Amino acid sequence: MTWNRYGATPQDGDLVQLVGLRHKHFLITLKTGGEFQTHRGVIKHDDLIGKPWGSQVFSHNGSPFFILQPSFSDLLKYTPRATQIMYPKDIGFILLSMGIGVGSTVLEAGTGSGSLTAAFANAVGDEGKVFSYDVKEATQKIAIKNLEKLGLAQRVSFKVRDIEEGFDESNVDAVFLDVPNPFDYLRQVRAAMKTGGFFGTLLPTYNQVATLINALRQADFGFIDVCEIFLRYFKAEPQRLRPTDRMVAHTGFLIFARPMIIDHSILEGAEIIAAGASADDDDDNQPPY
Amino acid sequence: MTWNRYGATPQDGDLVQLVGLRHKHFLITLKTGGEFQTHRGVIKHDDLIGKPWGSQVFSHNGSPFFILQPSFSDLLKYTPRATQIMYPKDIGFILLSMGIGVGSTVLEAGTGSGSLTAAFANAVGDEGKVFSYDVKEATQKIAIKNLEKLGLAQRVSFKVRDIEEGFDESNVDAVFLDVPNPFDYLRQVRAAMKTGGFFGTLLPTYNQVATLINALRQADFGFIDVCEIFLRYFKAEPQRLRPTDRMVAHTGFLIFARPMIIDHSILEGAEIIAAGASADDDDDNQPPY
Amino acid sequence: MTWNRYGATPQDGDLVQLVGLRHKHFLITLKTGGEFQTHRGVIKHDDLIGKPWGSQVFSHNGSPFFILQPSFSDLLKYTPRATQIMYPKDIGFILLSMGIGVGSTVLEAGTGSGSLTAAFANAVGDEGKVFSYDVKEATQKIAIKNLEKLGLAQRVSFKVRDIEEGFDESNVDAVFLDVPNPFDYLRQVRAAMKTGGFFGTLLPTYNQVATLINALRQADFGFIDVCEIFLRYFKAEPQRLRPTDRMVAHTGFLIFARPMIIDHSILEGAEIIAAGASADDDDDNQPPY
Amino acid sequence: MTWNRYGATPQDGDLVQLVGLRHKHFLITLKTGGEFQTHRGVIKHDDLIGKPWGSQVFSHNGSPFFILQPSFSDLLKYTPRATQIMYPKDIGFILLSMGIGVGSTVLEAGTGSGSLTAAFANAVGDEGKVFSYDVKEATQKIAIKNLEKLGLAQRVSFKVRDIEEGFDESNVDAVFLDVPNPFDYLRQVRAAMKTGGFFGTLLPTYNQVATLINALRQADFGFIDVCEIFLRYFKAEPQRLRPTDRMVAHTGFLIFARPMIIDHSILEGAEIIAAGASADDDDDNQPPY
Repeated sequence: MTWNRYGATPQDGDLVQLVGLRHKHFLITLKTGGEFQTHRGVIKHDDLIGKPWGSQVFSHNGSPFFILQPSFSDLLKYTPRATQIMYPKDIGFILLSMGIGVGSTVLEAGTGSGSLTAAFANAVGDEGKVFSYDVKEATQKIAIKNLEKLGLAQRVSFKVRDIEEGFDESNVDAVFLDVPNPFDYLRQVRAAMKTGGFFGTLLPTYNQVATLINALRQADFGFIDVCEIFLRYFKAEPQRLRPTDRMVAHTGFLIFARPMIIDHSILEGAEIIAAGASADDDDDNQPPY
Repeated sequence: MTWNRYGATPQDGDLVQLVGLRHKHFLITLKTGGEFQTHRGVIKHDDLIGKPWGSQVFSHNGSPFFILQPSFSDLLKYTPRATQIMYPKDIGFILLSMGIGVGSTVLEAGTGSGSLTAAFANAVGDEGKVFSYDVKEATQKIAIKNLEKLGLAQRVSFKVRDIEEGFDESNVDAVFLDVPNPFDYLRQVRAAMKTGGFFGTLLPTYNQVATLINALRQADFGFIDVCEIFLRYFKAEPQRLRPTDRMVAHTGFLIFARPMIIDHSILEGAEIIAAGASADDDDDNQPPY
Repeated sequence: MTWNRYGATPQDGDLVQLVGLRHKHFLITLKTGGEFQTHRGVIKHDDLIGKPWGSQVFSHNGSPFFILQPSFSDLLKYTPRATQIMYPKDIGFILLSMGIGVGSTVLEAGTGSGSLTAAFANAVGDEGKVFSYDVKEATQKIAIKNLEKLGLAQRVSFKVRDIEEGFDESNVDAVFLDVPNPFDYLRQVRAAMKTGGFFGTLLPTYNQVATLINALRQADFGFIDVCEIFLRYFKAEPQRLRPTDRMVAHTGFLIFARPMIIDHSILEGAEIIAAGASADDDDDNQPPY
Repeated sequence: MTWNRYGATPQDGDLVQLVGLRHKHFLITLKTGGEFQTHRGVIKHDDLIGKPWGSQVFSHNGSPFFILQPSFSDLLKYTPRATQIMYPKDIGFILLSMGIGVGSTVLEAGTGSGSLTAAFANAVGDEGKVFSYDVKEATQKIAIKNLEKLGLAQRVSFKVRDIEEGFDESNVDAVFLDVPNPFDYLRQVRAAMKTGGFFGTLLPTYNQVATLINALRQADFGFIDVCEIFLRYFKAEPQRLRPTDRMVAHTGFLIFARPMIIDHSILEGAEIIAAGASADDDDDNQPPY
C-alpha cells in the first residue's frame, strides 16, 4: 500500500511512526506478530495494530511512545539514506514551481537518497511517471528500497547511467537535475523534455549558479528564476513565544528555467524571456508577490 | 481536462499562459475560433493551437508573446481572486508537512480565494477528496469558478456554512483552517478528523499564534510546530549575480499540530507530545535539519 | 590605555589577540617578562612586544600563532562573562539608532556582562558618560573588571541598585534597559532622561514586546520601532562561495522609542508619533529604506 | 557644534528634526529669526528654540509637527545625497568589526554620499582622524557640506584623487573601500595601513566577492570574513504584532580582512589565517556565536 493510505486504525502492512522520549522518531512497517526493539524496551506490533492513531503505548519496560501516521516531511527526515537529502522547504516549492501534479511525467538525475524521487512519485499519482537516473548503482538501490517501503516504487523507472549519454525519454513535462554540474547536460535535458516545459535544479554555490545561468541562456532556456528559501522555527511556548536560537542558514539555491523555441533572426521582446519571477519582486507597483 | 494534462502542443480547451512585454502574464483557455484581446493587440487562438510550447507568437500589431504551460505557482499568481492568496512558498511546505498526497481526504475552511483549495485538490488526485467550507457564498463562488477552470472542481465538495456549527465529515486525514480565529473551532476540528491526523493553519500575528498554542494544548493537540518561511529571489545576471533589492518580509506563521489521545491519569512522557520539529532544530547534535 | 590606541607595534600594557590552531582566540594584556600558557605551549610576552602586528609567532614547542589587535567584536566574543552577551549585529545598530556618539550621556540597566556597557563607553569618549545599574553586585564586578581591561572603566559610573527605586540621573541623552521587564520601569526611565531622548531595549519574546508597546504608549512614548537583525556568514571560498550551513536564528527583538510631551487635550496628528521607522518600510513609493 | 551635543532645549545652531503628518521628516539647523517652509505651512525657528524636546508644535496654518534630536540613523536617511547611501544595519556592524573607536585613524575611498564618512568621523572623536578620497570632486563637495552640517568636517581630510595613484597616509588603523573594484587597490591599501589592521568593503554582487577573496589571499590578507545583514521591522501594534509586509532583501555583502605578515617559507598553521568568523558559526560545539 501507499504510505498515506491509512485506515481508521493502524493495520498490518502500514508504515507508521513511533515517537518516544527525547524526541526520538522511528518509522516501522507493522507486521502481525512482529516486535520493535528500541534501547527503551520492546514494543509488540500487535499492541499497535488496531490501537487508535495518536494514542500512547508503552514498551515492555514502561517507556512511553506515541503512534502516528508520518507526514511526508517525517519520511524525508527519518528514512535511512546514503547521501544528502533535500529539505521539505525546498521540495514543496519545487513541486509547485515545476507544475508537477497527478499525471505529470518527471525525469530526475541523480536519484541520490531518493527523497526527491519519492516526492515526485507521490505527486504524480498512478497516472504519472517518474524516470530516475543515477550513475551509482549502489546509491540507487538504497533509494529503490526506500521507495518500495513507501509504496511508491511502481511509479518510478530507475536507470543506472552516466547522463552524459543522454536520456531514453522525450517529451517529459519536467526535468530536475540534482548533480553538481547541470550546465554540462542541457543538450540532453532539452532532448528529453517538452519545449516550454519545466527545468529545475538546486545548487549550493554561487559559482555553480552563475555558470548555469550562462549555459541556460546559450541553450535558449528562458524565464530563469533563482531563489533561496529560509525556514525558521519557533519555540511553541505561548507565554514565551520566540524563534529558536539557531537555524539552517543554507541548503542550496533553487534555479528554474524553461526551454524556449527562439527564432534568433526575428527575436523581438527578448526581455520577455529574460525576465524571471524576480522581475515581479522588484516591481514595487505590483501586488506584493 | 485538468490544468496539467497537456499534449505535445496547445489544444482547444487547454489553460495556457501568454507572457508579453513588461513581464505581463495572462492565463487563457484556448477555444477554436477565439480571440484574445490585450492592450498590445489581438491574438487569435487558432494561431496558438498546434504551435510548439515555448515558442513566440505575435499579436496583430506585432507585439511579441510567448506561450507556455502554467506552473501551479503561475496559477496562484495570475488567477483573479476575491481575497488574499496563499503563497507557493507556504503552500508547498503545508502539503509536505500535512502528509497530503494522492488519496488523502482534506477539509479546509474558509475557501477564501481557493488557492489552497486548488493545491489540495491538485495533490489528492481523483482518489482523494477535499471538503471546503466558507461562510460567504459569494467568495466561494469565485473559488468554484477558478477550480472549474483548472479541471479540479470535481474533487471538491464546497459548502457554505459558519463552521461554528461543525463539519459534516469525520475521519478526514487533514484539516486546514484559514480563518482568523482557529482557536475557537478546535472541538469541531477534532470531531471531523482522525485522531493523530494533521491539523494546520496560517496566522499573520503573534497574538493569534500564542492564543492558538494555548487552545491546542487544552484540546489535547500535540507535536505543535510553529515556523515561518522566507523566499528571496536573485537577479539572474551571471556577471552581476545578487539578490533582488526587496522581498516579502512576512506572509504568516505556519502552525501544525496533531490531535492526540491522551490518558491524563497515566500520562508519562508528556514532553514527547510537547516537542515539535523545532526540538530538532535547536539540538546541534542532530543532523542539520 | 584604551583598547584601541595601539602603536606601530605591540607594547607593554597592550590588550592583544593571539589566534592559534583550530581557530582558538586569546585576549592577553602584554607585560614585559610575562608568559602566556596555552595547551599548545608557552609564549613569552617579550617575543611579542615590538613584533610587527599581523605576524606569526611560535610557542616554545613550535605551535603557530598570529598576533593581532582585537576589534570590538573580538572583545565581545572572547571576553569572559557571567551572563548572556549582546551581539555585535545588534549593538552596532543600537548605537546608530540611539544617537550615541562622542559626548553622549547614556544610562543602562542591567550591567549584565558589560558588553553593551563597553560599547557605550567606547562610543561616548572621554567627553561622554555612561551610568550602569545592576541589582547583582557580583555580576557587575565582572563587568567592571572587563571594562578596566579595555581602558574604558573611567567613563562609567557603576551602581548596584534595584532600578524600581529609580535612577540618580536626569536629562541623560539615552537609556537602554536590558532587563526582562522594561515595561515596569518606564516612569523611572522618563525621570532620568531628556524628553525626546532615545530609549531602547532588547527582548527575546513576542509577549514581552507586546506588553512593552502597550506600556510605552501609555507612558507617552512615541516613534516606537520594533525590529530584528539577522547575520549570515559565508564560507570564504572563492571557487565555492556559499553561505555557512547554520546561523543564529534569534538573539532578540530590538525596540526603540522616544519619550514625548503630548498635550492630550489638543492632540492632532497622533499618527505622527504612532509611526515608527517601519512606516517607511512598508511604503513602496519611498526610497528602499 | 557637533550634531549630538544638545542642551536641555533646542538652541540656535542646533541640527534638529521635525516630523510631520504622513511620516515626513525634515532636518533643519535652527537660526534665530529663521523660518521653515513646508507644504503644510510655515514654522518660525523662534517657536522651536527653547521649546521642550519631544513636544508638539504647529505651523502657521495649524499642521502638527514634533521636534526631536535626530539619531545618526535619521541623519543617514534624511540628508540629501548624490549617491547610494550605506544603511545603518551595515554601518553599525562595520564600526564594531573594524575596531573603530575614539582615537582611531580611518581611511576610506570613495567618499560617496559621505554617510560612512560621517559615521567614521562620529566614532573617532576629536582624537581620531578620517581620510576620505574620491575621484569626483563634485560628489565629495556634497559630502563635505553634509559633514559640516553635522559638525564633523574638522575630523576629516578630504582628498580628490584616483586611488590607483595610492594614498598619502601610512599606518592607519583601518581602511574601508566603497568602490566597485576594491581588488584592484590592495597594494595601495597595504601601503597605507598598519599590518594586522582592519580592511573592509561592501560589495553588491557575488562575482565581486569571489574576485576580492582571491585577490586578498594573493596579497597576504587573512581572517577573511564575508557576511550579510538582514533587518526586518515589525508593525508596532500590540494586539496584532507582526512583521511588516516587505523588507529590504539586499544592500550588499560585507567583507572584512586583515593584512598579515606571512613568511611563506616557514608558514605553518595556514588554516589559522584562512579561518574567518564563519569558522565559529559552523562549529556547533561553540557557544552560539
